[in-house]
Amino acid sequence: MNLKDYIRDINDFPAVGIVFKDITPLLNNPVALKFALTELQNFLKSQKIDKVVGMESRGFFFAPMLALQLNAGFVPVRKSGKLPSAAISETYGLEYGKDTLEIHTDAIKKGDRVLVHDDVLATGGTAAATCKLVERLGGKVIQCNFLIELDFLNGREKLKSFEVNSILHY
Amino acid sequence: MNLKDYIRDINDFPAVGIVFKDITPLLNNPVALKFALTELQNFLKSQKIDKVVGMESRGFFFAPMLALQLNAGFVPVRKSGKLPSAAISETYGLEYGKDTLEIHTDAIKKGDRVLVHDDVLATGGTAAATCKLVERLGGKVIQCNFLIELDFLNGREKLKSFEVNSILHY
Repeated sequence: MNLKDYIRDINDFPAVGIVFKDITPLLNNPVALKFALTELQNFLKSQKIDKVVGMESRGFFFAPMLALQLNAGFVPVRKSGKLPSAAISETYGLEYGKDTLEIHTDAIKKGDRVLVHDDVLATGGTAAATCKLVERLGGKVIQCNFLIELDFLNGREKLKSFEVNSILHY
Repeated sequence: MNLKDYIRDINDFPAVGIVFKDITPLLNNPVALKFALTELQNFLKSQKIDKVVGMESRGFFFAPMLALQLNAGFVPVRKSGKLPSAAISETYGLEYGKDTLEIHTDAIKKGDRVLVHDDVLATGGTAAATCKLVERLGGKVIQCNFLIELDFLNGREKLKSFEVNSILHY
């Protein structure tokens, strides 16, 4: 199955000059959805995972499914002010301006083996900030995985100290 | 298993006077996560479902898992401007102001049998707007289900024409 058949290019979204990779056709197809989930799971081989961390909002699609398959808990990382309980935050630079991500302080226990998942690896800022949050709580990032990696943005460079796997490369 | 043990009350979130039901302890526990998913799935009995629709953002946690278990596709309903392709929208009233939800026009096919899922049924505005979007695209809402229903807000009243099921009632 070629999953690229289920990824749609959207020109000038969210801003002029950007070609957005729309994964909704993949989500809409039960066979493609299962196939993608299995591919992500296969990246783990037989490594034990305690928590799967997914980033708001599109990381929320596959991270809970991965947690389910791996017998792990799911942990949401959210934008500033969205998590209701005690949290720590990381601020990171974007092309224009900054963004802040948060994680609940009780979401990761010291020594937890963690899978970090998002839909797309672009510049790597979001994933790097998430890995920092996990490590500040004493978790060990076993792997970062993605549906899609935009190779030309070289986001992998910001995740050098971690294993990084992506199903589709552009 | 009593899932209420995994729901945490947060006072004055997101605004003073509101007691927020925090489901992150449930998500964090692999046994509770699986148990909740099975309960949601059992509400369907053996009804065939083509698409599971989940609402941004916390509806995204369980809706893709339900799609996976039911051999259905997953469809995200998002806040205004977040979906990249052609979409239709519904605007609905909140306690203060209004909100707008969108769905991709190609996400639901005429005659699709649809499960609508969100984490919490409160006033019912979000779920009612989502059901309208599904019906405008020719889908049939088979059921709306929720992890939590806040009975005192009577959201069920706005969903009178649909089957509504919730695991936990407050």
